[in-house]
Amino acid sequence: MSGEPTLVMLIEDNVDHAELVIRTMENNPIPTRIQHLTDGETALDYLLRRNNFSEPSSSPRPHHPFRPAPPRVDGLEVLRIIKEEEELRSIPVVILTTSEAEKDMTHAYGNYVNSYLVKPVGFEDFSNLMKDLGVYWLGWNKQLRA
Amino acid sequence: MSGEPTLVMLIEDNVDHAELVIRTMENNPIPTRIQHLTDGETALDYLLRRNNFSEPSSSPRPHHPFRPAPPRVDGLEVLRIIKEEEELRSIPVVILTTSEAEKDMTHAYGNYVNSYLVKPVGFEDFSNLMKDLGVYWLGWNKQLRA
Repeated sequence: MSGEPTLVMLIEDNVDHAELVIRTMENNPIPTRIQHLTDGETALDYLLRRNNFSEPSSSPRPHHPFRPAPPRVDGLEVLRIIKEEEELRSIPVVILTTSEAEKDMTHAYGNYVNSYLVKPVGFEDFSNLMKDLGVYWLGWNKQLRA
Repeated sequence: MSGEPTLVMLIEDNVDHAELVIRTMENNPIPTRIQHLTDGETALDYLLRRNNFSEPSSSPRPHHPFRPAPPRVDGLEVLRIIKEEEELRSIPVVILTTSEAEKDMTHAYGNYVNSYLVKPVGFEDFSNLMKDLGVYWLGWNKQLRA
């Protein structure tokens, strides 16, 4: 493994949740850099190097040709595009949501989500999940380096 | 969540490793049933309900039409078929291997593996990995029930 920190992209519009995720991730012993984006549209701009992220240095990912964006982009759409694009596919995508609806899980797994998590209600459970998430994906899971 | 135990399919030809995995999984507080198969060919028989597993009761999975098997089946081939078949796709597939070769990781992520793990050398690390694997996939990850 190189000495470069693992780059985690966090797409979260709930500011409190984002802060909690970032704080827990930063406490992880594995060096991590978190790129927090509040919506799917901006996440696609970043991943596909468009608009504000057209400079490769501001978006450390394999270069990708411009691609017109769908008008409104939710998390599942970001997932779909990541898994459709061969150059992005190896990025593990974990959906962390409030929905346990079968239709949302079917859609996510149908589009090859790596893991599907439901946000626990209490602070302590949320914080434990974040810890275990970091241990597993940043510690144990092996991933290709860009 | 239903009271049914989570069914884990373990494809492992190393008897010692299989035993260790099974023992650690059984110590997990989440009720688990482990189906241990020693090779990919048998795993596909099970998943696709062929040969010894043509009775649905002996292979609790959504029914699937017969499909001729490729002559030799390795773990990556099992992954490919699981992710190709819409009815099987939602089964999380974790590859646990000795190989950290970029080509193997590229192939696995290219075929939508959920997670890629490298077997640690020491017993204690292996055992810790198994524990964290159980906590994450059996505890936190949400999955569709057949």
